[in-house]
Amino acid sequence: MQIGIVGLGLIGGSLGLDFRALGHRVLGVSRQAQTCELALVRGAVDQAATTPELLTQADIVFLCTPLGVMSATVERLIPHLPPGAILTDVGSVKASVVEQLAPLWPNFVGGHPMAGTAETGIAAAQTQLFQKRPYVLTPTPATPRASIHILTELVQSLGCQMFTCDPATHDQAVALISHLPVFISANLIATASHAASPEIIRLAEQLASSGFKDASRVGGGNPELGRMMAEYNHTALLSALYAYRQGLDTWIAQIENQQWDDLEGQLQQTQAQRPRFL
Amino acid sequence: MQIGIVGLGLIGGSLGLDFRALGHRVLGVSRQAQTCELALVRGAVDQAATTPELLTQADIVFLCTPLGVMSATVERLIPHLPPGAILTDVGSVKASVVEQLAPLWPNFVGGHPMAGTAETGIAAAQTQLFQKRPYVLTPTPATPRASIHILTELVQSLGCQMFTCDPATHDQAVALISHLPVFISANLIATASHAASPEIIRLAEQLASSGFKDASRVGGGNPELGRMMAEYNHTALLSALYAYRQGLDTWIAQIENQQWDDLEGQLQQTQAQRPRFL
Repeated sequence: MQIGIVGLGLIGGSLGLDFRALGHRVLGVSRQAQTCELALVRGAVDQAATTPELLTQADIVFLCTPLGVMSATVERLIPHLPPGAILTDVGSVKASVVEQLAPLWPNFVGGHPMAGTAETGIAAAQTQLFQKRPYVLTPTPATPRASIHILTELVQSLGCQMFTCDPATHDQAVALISHLPVFISANLIATASHAASPEIIRLAEQLASSGFKDASRVGGGNPELGRMMAEYNHTALLSALYAYRQGLDTWIAQIENQQWDDLEGQLQQTQAQRPRFL
Repeated sequence: MQIGIVGLGLIGGSLGLDFRALGHRVLGVSRQAQTCELALVRGAVDQAATTPELLTQADIVFLCTPLGVMSATVERLIPHLPPGAILTDVGSVKASVVEQLAPLWPNFVGGHPMAGTAETGIAAAQTQLFQKRPYVLTPTPATPRASIHILTELVQSLGCQMFTCDPATHDQAVALISHLPVFISANLIATASHAASPEIIRLAEQLASSGFKDASRVGGGNPELGRMMAEYNHTALLSALYAYRQGLDTWIAQIENQQWDDLEGQLQQTQAQRPRFL
């Protein structure tokens, strides 16, 4: 198959490495000439260019740019896409992306490979990044069945765990387990940095250990990524945050009212629930 | 030195192993005969008994029982303690402990070795558990200077990082970096387990990865320990939770008002603040 990849970062580059290893021909597009060169050197693409003309040969195109530039990018691609080409994306939010892109290219299937590393960029691209990781496809009733089928088979060849659901279901699920954690974790860092005298904060910084480290990790991550989650998934994220705040009030009330047995009962529940997410 | 250890669990047993390796004589007390035997076999004590008579020889006694039984335990010990003996504890909360125990034994110095493993009990005891870990002493103006000095030297010989502060300062600092994380993390698990339809929760469980795993770890821990934190440190914990809730409202308002630049600015701050706690 001839596979176009637009945006040669960690995800685009890693897809390219795996697809080439599987015998496909990979056509890369990046706005940076240097990135094109590096993608060629790393073996992530067979051909690369800073403009989309080479996509006229593509059967499937993976859109791997940041969420904020996807729709502008697709508008520039359209004149060069063959009429039957399947277009898919790798964005971490789906409803807003599908809403923007499906009208531009009816043969579009939303997708979200849930893999990554702390690094970004083509230099961080690696083989088998998607192995055993979830890959969610979010077709709508209007998405051509044949395209879903072809894309599913291709993605499964990466060794992913496939999931298919509608865009809103995806967004609500990732709001709970991926976007909500970022904001409650960031708020932990902000609280521990401000909510006491400088002397106490200084001691807290020195005493913090693995519990704080783990609970604060995602809140100390890439600010741009956190902003994108909020901006593109704000309805689902707000629902999750409202539910979280309501839950917090229950814990606070139990502590205020010294209901220690109830509190311990709640902690027994969360201890029992957590393994279902692991 | 002759060192008494009352409560031969992970912390008591590990203290015993290190003190014996440093050439001290360790006298262990546990309510369970089996624990006494195991402590002897593991080399954590020189002598062990289920009653406190052998503490008549002790220069220093480490109280290593759960917070809830400390004061009753001290009342049983007192008839057997030599008049000059220093008494210290290892509880994770200090103001309420110091308030209870100092009137019972004026030569008491509150302490908190901040080390541990996921396991508990004498079987989990290990050498050098305290190496490079914080050890906080919380004397009051009434604590005998000489006792603080002797205890500081002894504890430093374990290779700890020593801190000294008043009990309330300790409790506020650990509320922020140790107790608050437990409850915000538990509330994340509860929210992700309830705040959507069963179909979405099921998908969330399957898609959850390292971000959720880390952010939820301490909230899925020992429920009894979480209850103790809340019960014995509830004033400082409530202050931390109120500050956390107020912070949460700011994040929520920014998302409601679509203030994406402000939100990104806040995330840049938390990204910059986190390394100070590591």
